[in-house]
Amino acid sequence: MPNDPIIIRTVADLRAHVADWRRDGQTIALVPTMGALHDGHLSLMRLAKGQADRVIASIFVNPAQFGPGEDYERYPRTEAEDVARLATVDVDAAFVPTAREMYPEGFATRVHIERLGDVLCGAHRPGHFDGMALVVVKLLTSALPDVAIFGEKDYQQLQIIRRFTADLNIPVRIMGGPIEREADGLALSSRNRYLSPEQRQIAVALSVALKAARDAVKAGGDPSEASAKAREDIVKAGFDSVDYVEVRDPSSLELVTEAGTPARVFGAARLGPTRLIDNWPVD
Amino acid sequence: MPNDPIIIRTVADLRAHVADWRRDGQTIALVPTMGALHDGHLSLMRLAKGQADRVIASIFVNPAQFGPGEDYERYPRTEAEDVARLATVDVDAAFVPTAREMYPEGFATRVHIERLGDVLCGAHRPGHFDGMALVVVKLLTSALPDVAIFGEKDYQQLQIIRRFTADLNIPVRIMGGPIEREADGLALSSRNRYLSPEQRQIAVALSVALKAARDAVKAGGDPSEASAKAREDIVKAGFDSVDYVEVRDPSSLELVTEAGTPARVFGAARLGPTRLIDNWPVD
Repeated sequence: MPNDPIIIRTVADLRAHVADWRRDGQTIALVPTMGALHDGHLSLMRLAKGQADRVIASIFVNPAQFGPGEDYERYPRTEAEDVARLATVDVDAAFVPTAREMYPEGFATRVHIERLGDVLCGAHRPGHFDGMALVVVKLLTSALPDVAIFGEKDYQQLQIIRRFTADLNIPVRIMGGPIEREADGLALSSRNRYLSPEQRQIAVALSVALKAARDAVKAGGDPSEASAKAREDIVKAGFDSVDYVEVRDPSSLELVTEAGTPARVFGAARLGPTRLIDNWPVD
Repeated sequence: MPNDPIIIRTVADLRAHVADWRRDGQTIALVPTMGALHDGHLSLMRLAKGQADRVIASIFVNPAQFGPGEDYERYPRTEAEDVARLATVDVDAAFVPTAREMYPEGFATRVHIERLGDVLCGAHRPGHFDGMALVVVKLLTSALPDVAIFGEKDYQQLQIIRRFTADLNIPVRIMGGPIEREADGLALSSRNRYLSPEQRQIAVALSVALKAARDAVKAGGDPSEASAKAREDIVKAGFDSVDYVEVRDPSSLELVTEAGTPARVFGAARLGPTRLIDNWPVD
């Protein structure tokens, strides 16, 4: 029977636990999340267990990464269920700070990542990646883990995190975990729970269209034609609009205009009030 | 006979030395500088010796904190003399990276501090404090010292550093060291070596005028009148222009409009191509 994770509410308490573990020579993995945990998150926790002696999951719906009119208020907050799920994968501690703990009165610091943060979701969610980077810097400097693990569903986020941890000399190894999908291919996401049963049927079209574009580019097809076709198919399937479908370099995130170079197909589309993202590698 | 400091050129080598010292249970102080070391810097090194087992001085003329048309190119670079001076105060290591080591190809991250960075020197040197914060974050995350020491001549810088290290949860104690002055009161500065003998005679007027403003405010005088008088006196003495003389809260850096509240008098003025700054506390 696995133990419940220790619940930690403050940075000071987080540091005290980490210091104890360090004193015993133990290594530490951190898996930052916004809670509303699904099997995708749990796969990251399992990955973390294989990388370090202790696993800390953070659960924090970070106000800094939501824009005006986005879903900060209605984002699911399910701490009790999340903690129960973390227990099933033997996570040692859950860091669950308040917004006030992370952004006290007088907070004045901002982080910005040029280029990588300007494209794809960055072009459609101004300030989102700056807010994400800010909280990830704080989580990393607070816990100083050996390794931090992020899901590849947020692939652009993962590349941005690799960039700023290197740029800011934060002493941590960044690791990506593969996308987990439903049986029909829909990428697992906390935002899937916003979908009505009818929308859930439509939602899979994002994954299907991006995968088809991936297959087309892999077979030597033109990346911009494959992207255009995917955009059409996503709208035809019932999405209200497409933010982007683009084929980009997996590391620089620069636009790929020819088949045969390293690439990844990225997409984001809106279904009612819900915005879904997904991506597929061109191997 | 004191030993010469170890010269460290890379972040990896810095970390290796720090890890060795940590393994021996030793504590570490970091004193960031831009080199061209004078007795003010050496006083910070002596302060550092009293705070930790090991003292690392960094010497790096940080391009990110110089604006276009500022003195990045002509800023004095005197590594051999600096290292010799560090030996006299028994500093253990000098971290002397290249610009390429600190800002490799593809570097994309920026740090910004709101409010505190917008006033005083921030209003006259756009981007200066963002560039300073960027390199200080990097130095702190690279060395992870117990304490980092900065001179109070750059008092606004010190307050900004206190702010972003707290905001970003960088686990370090920030300490200020008092301003060192020439016999006539001129604050020691690497930029004093730009001054001709005639300019050197004029330069002391900045310190004298700010101190007089301090005395006036301390005696109950109106802060804005005292500031105006100081600006006049600085120009009368032969400075070409005054960037600012202002009485501000020592912690928030907000403008102080009444005597009797905590305050500090800040000034910056230009003498030929040289920009000098100074400040005096209202105790």
